Amino acid sequence: MSFLGERLSITPPDNLGTKYREEEVERFVVECMMSQGVPRANATALAEVLVAADVRGHISHGIFRLDMYMSEVMKKICDGHATPTIIKESVSTALVDGNNGLGPVVSNFCMDLAIKKAKATGIGWVCVKGSNHFGIAGWYPMTAVKHGLIGMSFTNTSSLVVPTRGKNNIMGTNPISVAAPAKKDDSFVLDMATSMVSGGKLEIAHLKNQPIPEGWALNKHGKPTTDPKEMLDDGSLLPLGGTELYSGYKGFGLGMMVEIFCGILSGAPYAHNIRTWTKSTSPADLSHCFVALNPAFFANGFEDRMSDLMDHCRGEEPDEGGKAIQVAGDPERAHTQKVKEDGGITYPITLVKTLWQLAKHLDVTPMQSA
Amino acid sequence: MSFLGERLSITPPDNLGTKYREEEVERFVVECMMSQGVPRANATALAEVLVAADVRGHISHGIFRLDMYMSEVMKKICDGHATPTIIKESVSTALVDGNNGLGPVVSNFCMDLAIKKAKATGIGWVCVKGSNHFGIAGWYPMTAVKHGLIGMSFTNTSSLVVPTRGKNNIMGTNPISVAAPAKKDDSFVLDMATSMVSGGKLEIAHLKNQPIPEGWALNKHGKPTTDPKEMLDDGSLLPLGGTELYSGYKGFGLGMMVEIFCGILSGAPYAHNIRTWTKSTSPADLSHCFVALNPAFFANGFEDRMSDLMDHCRGEEPDEGGKAIQVAGDPERAHTQKVKEDGGITYPITLVKTLWQLAKHLDVTPMQSA
Repeated sequence: MSFLGERLSITPPDNLGTKYREEEVERFVVECMMSQGVPRANATALAEVLVAADVRGHISHGIFRLDMYMSEVMKKICDGHATPTIIKESVSTALVDGNNGLGPVVSNFCMDLAIKKAKATGIGWVCVKGSNHFGIAGWYPMTAVKHGLIGMSFTNTSSLVVPTRGKNNIMGTNPISVAAPAKKDDSFVLDMATSMVSGGKLEIAHLKNQPIPEGWALNKHGKPTTDPKEMLDDGSLLPLGGTELYSGYKGFGLGMMVEIFCGILSGAPYAHNIRTWTKSTSPADLSHCFVALNPAFFANGFEDRMSDLMDHCRGEEPDEGGKAIQVAGDPERAHTQKVKEDGGITYPITLVKTLWQLAKHLDVTPMQSA
Repeated sequence: MSFLGERLSITPPDNLGTKYREEEVERFVVECMMSQGVPRANATALAEVLVAADVRGHISHGIFRLDMYMSEVMKKICDGHATPTIIKESVSTALVDGNNGLGPVVSNFCMDLAIKKAKATGIGWVCVKGSNHFGIAGWYPMTAVKHGLIGMSFTNTSSLVVPTRGKNNIMGTNPISVAAPAKKDDSFVLDMATSMVSGGKLEIAHLKNQPIPEGWALNKHGKPTTDPKEMLDDGSLLPLGGTELYSGYKGFGLGMMVEIFCGILSGAPYAHNIRTWTKSTSPADLSHCFVALNPAFFANGFEDRMSDLMDHCRGEEPDEGGKAIQVAGDPERAHTQKVKEDGGITYPITLVKTLWQLAKHLDVTPMQSA
């Protein structure tokens, strides 16, 4: 928690619990946001995405980031009241202005619009500018899956990735998410940064005082580093693939593709033009892209084939490591199951303490452990 | 050249040239195909894609593969006469049956259809089954770029990629291509296998008797190998990213995404169900997906922003290696320029000899060097 941290000086009690029910986490996020005048519907949209991230095990995109969202709303850099407007549209496409609203508010609007178009014409492709951090990319495609559709989402982000042969970061970690429905509530959910790893993984490693593997990152001088702090201090992540010998230019090319779908198509800042992610003095003005695709407009039996493909992959013989083969979405499904069995989400005590301090700062009831 | 090789026993002359004009290569491919009764239009569609691959420097996808296409047409495994038919369509989507025609014939039809829909509604998304090897994936998006559109293509392929934690290949190298127009005939052209490298790179390494870097491939026992022959002999390629530590599951997830867009959406064989690529006794029944997206339906000034983004990347400071930073499409542009300056495409003498033998075998005038 880096944005409000310095302002949270009240000492938390020693007996705080580390396990919290989803509903309680959601209640807390909503009340924090509402304490700053954000309407309940908008606060709830944000809370749902943050809780989903934690339940799915992507802790770098969960309540760990509440501080950032709060800070931007409190400084009026992000407009918690705003709702998006459509700039232009066709039966299958739309260009939307997020009007600087909360990322999930803007993004739910766009995904719903894409879904509506996909139901009518087979596909909806929606680009949006003027948005803010939208949480886990996978959230929006999963909404499409609930309607029996394939969903996709893309977002640009602040610069963090170095091009192959380069020294400095000039592209965001620009994630791609694609989800598709299978039988019996099974689904494929790919949610991946186009960098080697997400920036969040480095933040978590830094928080835990752990080194990172060679080949993930460069320091601010463009030299390889295994210290996450050196990357976080104006360094860079390598693109998916890594060095040129291992086709890192493909990962960089995918990041650029995402930028084309986001900033370039929607006419907003892109790549190096996007504000630095630690510098919250101006609106983020991020762009996203949402796609819904309707299998009913193609061959019958889509979900049967999806299930067969996924089950075939899972049933493959593992290598010497002996670990079962997973398809995209399986690790998150396993984590969701664990949270259910545990009766709540378990947070690091450092995060729990900071959230308690935030509660006191905002005069909101702190989270009550399960 | 592995398919007809054994039947080509006439000894070629010693004085064959290695440089050939594009028109002459195209003439040769067309005549070879027409010698087997393939209509000129269909033969030309194939010839154009193969020549484009050689001009762009993707020799594993150029005339090097003519032997495979010839073999399949001669054995009536692929129908050189066939043209595709639309199974169903909406204003923005279509499902097409390739009717087992030549890959480029089928794919040009689908891309043209996607372009037509993108001009009318902003987007065209076309899936096709019953096709054959379509050459370089980048060819079709580049057609969209000629119309001022963003183009995309995807294809499934025979199984060659191992899943993270697995021993055996169960997914194709499933390429993704995305192209977008910029100012003054500049363009972004990403054309990448979702595996660490393409299968063709291993074939070329094997042809040149060169080892491959560690981490690219496994042998048929699921063990790492640096011998391309060991991979080609029922081994596997790693997905983009490589091992689990370097996020290879992302590359595998992208390959699966491509399969969803191809075999799963179009209701045809997918992944492990696709015939082995060296076993040409039954139709390939490959599936592809083509997308055209019209920037005019989004924010004005698309090509200006594309040019700015690409030029910014190219102008970035290089690392110690000192090599200029390139964007997707630049290496191919450089190769195209070289072919122009050279006054023709330069082929390895072994390939030239095999093509001479093929000419004699088919009673077609051999290629005349430049």
